[in-house]
Amino acid sequence: MPETKVLINLSNRHIHVSKEDLAALFGAGHKLTKTKDLMQPGQFACEETVTIVGPKGRFEGVRILGPERAETQCEILASDQFKLGVPNCAVRESGQLDGSFPMEIIGPAGSVKKARGLIIAKRHIHFDPEAAKRFGVVDKELVSLKAGGERGAIFENVVCRVSPSYALECHLDFDEGNAVGIGNGSIGEIIKK
Amino acid sequence: MPETKVLINLSNRHIHVSKEDLAALFGAGHKLTKTKDLMQPGQFACEETVTIVGPKGRFEGVRILGPERAETQCEILASDQFKLGVPNCAVRESGQLDGSFPMEIIGPAGSVKKARGLIIAKRHIHFDPEAAKRFGVVDKELVSLKAGGERGAIFENVVCRVSPSYALECHLDFDEGNAVGIGNGSIGEIIKK
Repeated sequence: MPETKVLINLSNRHIHVSKEDLAALFGAGHKLTKTKDLMQPGQFACEETVTIVGPKGRFEGVRILGPERAETQCEILASDQFKLGVPNCAVRESGQLDGSFPMEIIGPAGSVKKARGLIIAKRHIHFDPEAAKRFGVVDKELVSLKAGGERGAIFENVVCRVSPSYALECHLDFDEGNAVGIGNGSIGEIIKK
Repeated sequence: MPETKVLINLSNRHIHVSKEDLAALFGAGHKLTKTKDLMQPGQFACEETVTIVGPKGRFEGVRILGPERAETQCEILASDQFKLGVPNCAVRESGQLDGSFPMEIIGPAGSVKKARGLIIAKRHIHFDPEAAKRFGVVDKELVSLKAGGERGAIFENVVCRVSPSYALECHLDFDEGNAVGIGNGSIGEIIKK
């Protein structure tokens, strides 16, 4: 029998920035300040936050997650769409930014307008290749995930992402966690179709 | 084959007030001002709003839904627990307030401290008896509900409530709607165990 139980951590809205945008937002030569390592190897939460501006509203204090990436992307919650004024914001895997909404980002040293990069993260599970074997899943496979107790649900279309640079961990967001009454460190069960 | 498709509407945080509390909050003799009929017969949204205060924070502009009820109850979102400071807020059917958290309510004419009445509404489906027959469900039965599209989920433990005073309608809250990417007027599918 393949393994089925997986650790779930919840994402709040956050942003990944490119080297160029980091310099524009925080000043040339600025280095990100790590406050906490995340479970995915090499990924970390930063002291730095920015303001994200949409057509109707803004969120202050949006945390930067490091390290820098090739392209800036901001992952919001579905519930953020209304305040920002971006209904029908694209639901995407990280890095898939074609056709995503534009946004303005304001930092302490300057602001940048991005033509794209605002997404709602598609719920997903990170696997290292060894874990993927034990769970019997392959990269890009869609599975369902049972989460929560009395107020639980089976989330559909959870994408499996397999890479040697990943650690076994499911990422839901705060909306999804609140909907099923779970916090960080909850355990979910993968259900294959 | 029983029917399975049901209209879903989403609840935001809201409050039902007793006659006594309405008088304390808005002044003796105050009558609720209807702004919109709700789908459930006799239920309506009001112009009046109040502030709800918990141990750590408050929400202003919490809408009163009329008519008055025998006991005041405030239905919050799971995501509201953190700001109010009421982790582990009871998940309850409407009216089942034993052991629920206390709260303070502030209106324009006064405030009241309630020893209980703060709940997270348990997701539910209203049926009139005729509809219950067509769907093959009985009062208090727990079913699952498939909702949403690409970002969908199957919500478990959705309680069926059958009464001649109800109209066929499923009530999820904003957290649940956001988690599966639906708005008001979406269609869900009942899945029996």
